[in-house]
Formats: sequence, structure tokens, C-alpha cells
Amino acid sequence: MPAKLNAKPTQKINTEELLAKANEPKKFAMKYHPFYRGKIEMALKAPVRTNDDFSIWYTPGVAEPCLKIKADKNLSFEYTNRWNTVAIISDGTRVLGLGDIGPEAGLPVMEGKSMLFKYLGGVDAFPICLGTKNTDEIIKAVKWLEPCIGGVNLEDIEKPKCYEVLSTLRKEMNIPVWHDDQQGTALVTLGGFVNALKVVGKKIHQVSVAVVGAGAAGSNIVKYLGLAGADLNKFYICDNKGILNMNRLNSVEDDPMKVYLTKNTNKEGKTGGIADAMKGADAVLAASTPGPGIIKTEWVKGMADDPIVFAEANPTPEIWPWEAQEGGARVIATGRSDFPNQVNNSVGFPAVFRGALDVSAKTISDEMCTAAAFALAKYAEKKGISENYIIPTMSESDMFIEEAVAVGMKAIEQGIARKKISRKELTERAAAQINRAQTITKLLMKKKIIKPPPS
Amino acid sequence: MPAKLNAKPTQKINTEELLAKANEPKKFAMKYHPFYRGKIEMALKAPVRTNDDFSIWYTPGVAEPCLKIKADKNLSFEYTNRWNTVAIISDGTRVLGLGDIGPEAGLPVMEGKSMLFKYLGGVDAFPICLGTKNTDEIIKAVKWLEPCIGGVNLEDIEKPKCYEVLSTLRKEMNIPVWHDDQQGTALVTLGGFVNALKVVGKKIHQVSVAVVGAGAAGSNIVKYLGLAGADLNKFYICDNKGILNMNRLNSVEDDPMKVYLTKNTNKEGKTGGIADAMKGADAVLAASTPGPGIIKTEWVKGMADDPIVFAEANPTPEIWPWEAQEGGARVIATGRSDFPNQVNNSVGFPAVFRGALDVSAKTISDEMCTAAAFALAKYAEKKGISENYIIPTMSESDMFIEEAVAVGMKAIEQGIARKKISRKELTERAAAQINRAQTITKLLMKKKIIKPPPS
Repeated sequence: MPAKLNAKPTQKINTEELLAKANEPKKFAMKYHPFYRGKIEMALKAPVRTNDDFSIWYTPGVAEPCLKIKADKNLSFEYTNRWNTVAIISDGTRVLGLGDIGPEAGLPVMEGKSMLFKYLGGVDAFPICLGTKNTDEIIKAVKWLEPCIGGVNLEDIEKPKCYEVLSTLRKEMNIPVWHDDQQGTALVTLGGFVNALKVVGKKIHQVSVAVVGAGAAGSNIVKYLGLAGADLNKFYICDNKGILNMNRLNSVEDDPMKVYLTKNTNKEGKTGGIADAMKGADAVLAASTPGPGIIKTEWVKGMADDPIVFAEANPTPEIWPWEAQEGGARVIATGRSDFPNQVNNSVGFPAVFRGALDVSAKTISDEMCTAAAFALAKYAEKKGISENYIIPTMSESDMFIEEAVAVGMKAIEQGIARKKISRKELTERAAAQINRAQTITKLLMKKKIIKPPPS
Repeated sequence: MPAKLNAKPTQKINTEELLAKANEPKKFAMKYHPFYRGKIEMALKAPVRTNDDFSIWYTPGVAEPCLKIKADKNLSFEYTNRWNTVAIISDGTRVLGLGDIGPEAGLPVMEGKSMLFKYLGGVDAFPICLGTKNTDEIIKAVKWLEPCIGGVNLEDIEKPKCYEVLSTLRKEMNIPVWHDDQQGTALVTLGGFVNALKVVGKKIHQVSVAVVGAGAAGSNIVKYLGLAGADLNKFYICDNKGILNMNRLNSVEDDPMKVYLTKNTNKEGKTGGIADAMKGADAVLAASTPGPGIIKTEWVKGMADDPIVFAEANPTPEIWPWEAQEGGARVIATGRSDFPNQVNNSVGFPAVFRGALDVSAKTISDEMCTAAAFALAKYAEKKGISENYIIPTMSESDMFIEEAVAVGMKAIEQGIARKKISRKELTERAAAQINRAQTITKLLMKKKIIKPPPS
């Protein structure tokens, strides 16, 4: 098991040591992946007392639920596992930070995602790596799956393709469609940012924000902050050509999200690079290229009082936490688990789907996402937020339940839930599903049916 | 649990009572399906000792196996569950005997199939009910899934579409593609028929056979019997317009399998209906319309000595077993579990896929299928065949292992296996996978994680 570093941002650490630690999981991964030959499998959810039971689960008995569903398709959410089933869809074109490695090579990631879905959210998610990169074909493939699934998680699809795939499918499908690299990252960032503002005593509608990176994550972070009340006029978004502004609108016309951002941010028409965007800003939110050195200590010094620095690139943040702190940063978040305040998608998507599936929602609205972000923030706030604790971790499993309930209740309120159930029932259901997944895993480990890893 | 009737063919039974028994599983199905809300779920196959393990299974560690697969796609069979994963594909157009009930309504059947795959064959099969009935679109959808699966099981797709889908995908994909309604039924029928011939002391290349029904099952039964050495010149195939013969070739031109059968059977050009086809025949093999009364006792009387009657329609055979026996039938098989000699696909496909997947085969050849059929027959023969025991049942789990080994060894022999392993290793692997599935199910039942059914 990789050692945890748990470095505090104040500690300046040998960067070589840090990078070596970051490589440790890779060594274990190459030992364990061939040993297990797969990280997920099917399990029966209904009993087989004797083989005669198959006459109930299969022909001839099964004909009866089939005919009932034929008469009312919504019953497929009641008589099958559709209600809890999500397809994880990727074309392998933007896998982790590895780029277009192809659908076969993306599969280990999608299986890992499926583990996270089940273990943290009790969701049955099967990985589908498609043998096509064509936008229309991806859209078709996913739409054809609709009759047998309750939701779609798009994953690691390159931009700008991912924008069209997501927006088309959200419009044309009657089940939740989610792109984790867009909505997931934005949700968790919003949750953490809201708490960071509380720590430094600033209001969301007043802050000025520099954003580094205008990809799928960065763009949606801005969008979600806008939904949560931020004044986008005071946002300065940098892509690799500098700050987005109306004078360079034609340089971004092939990217619909950048067009949106250019039109809706930077009212004063600031120009320049990251340093200029950060000057006087209350916060910098970076989801761009692995650092260090993308953001410089000097630039942090030029920010407003009590600056907030989110440096989310993996495995190396755009600026090391101790460098940010040298620059005066008050709250620092990264994508790494070995520093405080990890911005980790895994505290988002499992709960969002848990809540959406428990009410058989027809979509995941932006309001459901922001409700999840605020539930995340509130959970941490109740426990006591500080510079070193603005976002809960994966291990705080109550948090997933509260987040799921917030999502489900919002869906019911917005009239997009097929099932209307009480907050109490929703809480119990979410808890039951998550507990079930963890209980089964622990039981199989205890019985050594899931073998211990090779030494 | 539905009571077992276990009627011997000699016993004439009140048909109302029989049909009532046949309806019992439907009642249980309507009680149990809403209770369990799904018959399958995902399970983790790799450990989560602490949440830190996710840094091995997911980012950042997972990047390493991804990059290895990028360099050699075949490693996706080693580092992920692809090697054991099958997609069950249906468009819902010919579900059981219910016809075109749509993809949502087909889902309970496909989930039941997934249970059978796992419990009997240790195969991870996920149900995909497609929202398209278009032949080309079905073909495209399945091909796009190839990077993440080790095999395809086509199910309940109407004819003649199913022929084109199967033959195109077999040609164009590098993993096994199987249509259970074609190959599965034919395999088990061949296995049983071989033993029936032994019981009556006849040779396969000498017998004359009437075939009732020229659908997907009937057509492939004839094809497989031909592969096993039968002389198709002495086969008389009846569709709903009578015996296929060259004079009526244009009446079948929209159905490629019927064209094939017309050209390759009935050399003497016999005309007429089922009665004429059966006159003097050694066997009648029916996979047509639920009876009774499709085949009459009188017609059995007109057959050769020691006639063999396979009446496979469900839930009611084309002729009741006691009626066949009154006509002099010596060996009688049906599709029902409450009579001896059930022709049940479930003793075929789980083992065929087990064997094909254990060697990561690139296809399932006809020779692999007939090897499975002969392994099935041999297993029963070793235990002692008789009029009442020509086909093993689902409960004889050693049989699945022997069948899987026969399939895997044939794939290695034919050079279509990605992995070459010894018979001993193949036997151990097949046994381990099947045992694993049953052990997990029993454990989850014992711990009441799979709840007992409602009373």
C-alpha cells in the first residue's frame, strides 16, 4: 500500500521525494492489475435456492414481468436493475493526463471508476469503451443504450467533442447524463470554494477570480460559480494564449465553452497572461497543466489579502502548496490526496448518481449539482472548517448520504423525479445501497474470495 | 418455489393441471421481481483495504496498466475483466414466445440470462437492450463495444435479421459472437440427439429425420446435425407452408437459412405437410409453435421402428410426451423441466463461453460448438444413458467443466485461441470460475445480503 505523506502545506518537502511517492501507486498498479485480471465482476442479487428458481428468473416465469413492462415501460425501473444501472462511456481520447490512448487502454480507468461508483455510491456502473471517436456515433451509441440503463457517466472524452456529446444527450435522453470531467470537477470545486470563502470571510458575489485553464473542468467551474452567485464580470480566464477577452473572440470560435466564457467574463477587457489575471484577485482556480511553476509564488504575492489558491492539476499541482503559502496564500487546495483539501471528483459523482437514481430522475439539472456542492460544503462546515479542512474526504461516508439526499430532494422539487419519496426514505435508501456495497466487499475480502494482493 | 412435476412420459396427466403448473413460475415471478428490483449487480473483484487503494485502482496508479495496453491491446485481456466479460445483446423483437415486446420489456429476460451465465458458467455478462431494431445499427452498436468485451451473446432477435447480424459480426469481430437461439439450441439438441441414437442403436449418417419448424432454432439444428455427419438428403423440413423442396424455392427467398435448407435437404423432392415428412422417418425434431396437437399420435405411428421425438416448443410441446409414447416413440425430449430429457440451452451457452473466454478465443467456430455437443453427450453416456436420460441437467455442474474444456481445447487446436494452456490448467480455471460464482451467491444468501424471497 502506498505510504501516505500527509504533508502540511507549511512543510517544504523534497520535490523528488514527493514525485517518487506519486509514482508508488504505479508500481503497485502494475503488480496488482495482472494479478486480479479485472477489478469488477457480476454478482447475483436474487437467490438461487435450487436450479428450479431459474424458472422464475428466466423462462417461463419471467414472461410475466416482461409483459407488464411492455404495457408500461416505466416498470422497467421497478422489475429490473435498470434503476441502479449506469453506463460509464468513454472513447479513450482524453484518459487521465495521457491523451488519446484508445478505448482498450482506457478500460482500466473505467473499471476503477466502476469500483468507486459501487463502493462509494452503491451504484452498478459498467464500463463501455467505444470503438469510435466520431461525435455523432458516440451520441447514437449512448442513445441506443437508454432502454437498459438508469444513467450515463461520460468519462475522458476530449474537448470540444465532449460538450456536444453532453449537451445533445442531456436534451435527447430521459435519464441522467453526466460528464464527470465537466460537472464532477466543477461540483467539488464549488463545494470547496464556498468553504474557502467562509474561512477567509469573503462573499461569493464580491470576489474577483483568476482561472487558469479553460478546458472542460475550468470552463464548468466558472459556469457553476456563476450559478452559485459569483459575478463573472470579475473573472479572468486564461487559456494557453492568455486572458480571454472580446478582442480575441475569433481565436476561440472552435470551442463553444470558450466563446461563452469570453462573452460572459472579464468585463473590463483585461489582457495579458496568468500573472495579469491574478493581480489583485481574491482567488486563483487552476485546472490546467501539471506543474510546478505554472503559477509562481511572486504572482500569489500580487493577489488581494487572504488569497485562495486551488491548484488542481495531477500529479503535480500548478504550484506546490508551500510555494503558494510563501506567496501568502491563506487557503490552498490541490488534486493530491497527500495534502489537505483534496479536490477529488470521488466525493461528488457517486453521491450525485445515488440521489438521482434513488428517485429515478429524468436528468441531472444544474440545480441538482449545485445542491450537491452546497451539501458537501455544509457537511464540512458542520464538522468545523479551517484552512486545512474545506472539503470532506472519501472516507467520510455520511457525507455521500447527505449529498445524495440533497440531489434527490432537488429532483423531486423540480418535478424531474419519476419517484416521489420522503427525505427520510431517501436517506434510508441511499444509506442501504452504500452500506450494501461496502458490506459485500468486506465480506468477500474476509472470506478471501477477493484475495489479498501479492506481496 | 414451484413444485416439480417430474412426470414420466408414460403417465398421462391432466393437461389442465400441467398448464397450471406451467403458470406457477409466473406468479412467483410477479411477486419476486418487484421485491428484488433487479437480479444482478456489480461487485468488486479487487480489494479496498483503505480508500488509499483507489490510488492504485484509479488515478494516479492506473495510468501504468493503461500505457501498457496502449502499447499492446491484447494486454486488455490480462489487466482488466475484459477476458471474462460478455455483452448480452437484444433488440427485444423476439423475446421468448412473446414476439416484439421492445427492449425495456426484454430486460428481465436478459438479466435472467446474466444470472445463468454467472451461476452456471462463471461469466460476467451484462444485459444490453438496444433502442434500435435496424439491422445495420445493431451491427454497428455491437462492433463499437468490442474494445471492452471478450464476447457477444445475441439473444431474442427476430429472423431473418438475426442471421445477418450473427454472420456479419462473426466475420468482422475478433471476439466470439454467439446467437443462443441459433447455436445454443442446436448444440444441446445435437448432444441429446446423438445419445438418443445410441439408445435406439442407429447411426447418425443413416437416419431419416423430419424437422418441424424452420426458424432460427430448427435451421441451425439441421446445420449442426449435418456437421456431425447426418445425411441431409434424408431430412424433410417443414415450415408453415409444408415440406421445403426445390419447387417452392421462391416461396422462401427472403429467408437465407430456408434457401440453404431447401437446396441441401429432401433430395427426393417430397411434398406435403408434417404427416408426410414424418412418414417412415427415424426421428422428428420440432422447434416450432407451442402445442399440443402440432404433431399427432397417428403420425408417430407412421414413423420407422423405435422413433425419436424431440418436441421443443415451450411451454407446451408440439405433442405431449404420453401422446408420443402412445404412438410408439422410444425416446422423447421436450423443452420442459418437468419431463425427462429437457432440451435446455442453459446446459450449453455457459460452458461454451467459459471455454472460449478461458483461452481468449477470437471466435466460436462450428467445430467448437459440435465439440461442446459431443462433450455433453459423452458426459451423459459415462453416467449411463437410457430412454429417460440422454441430456444432463443444469444441476450436473461437472458437465459444464467438461464441456468448457472441450471448447477451449478445440479453439487451441484450431489456432483461434489467444492463450494456449494445458487441458489440466483449462480444467482448473473453468472449475475455479464456476465455483467462485456459486460460492459468492451462496455466501450472500447465507448472510441474507441476498434476502430470502417474500412469503
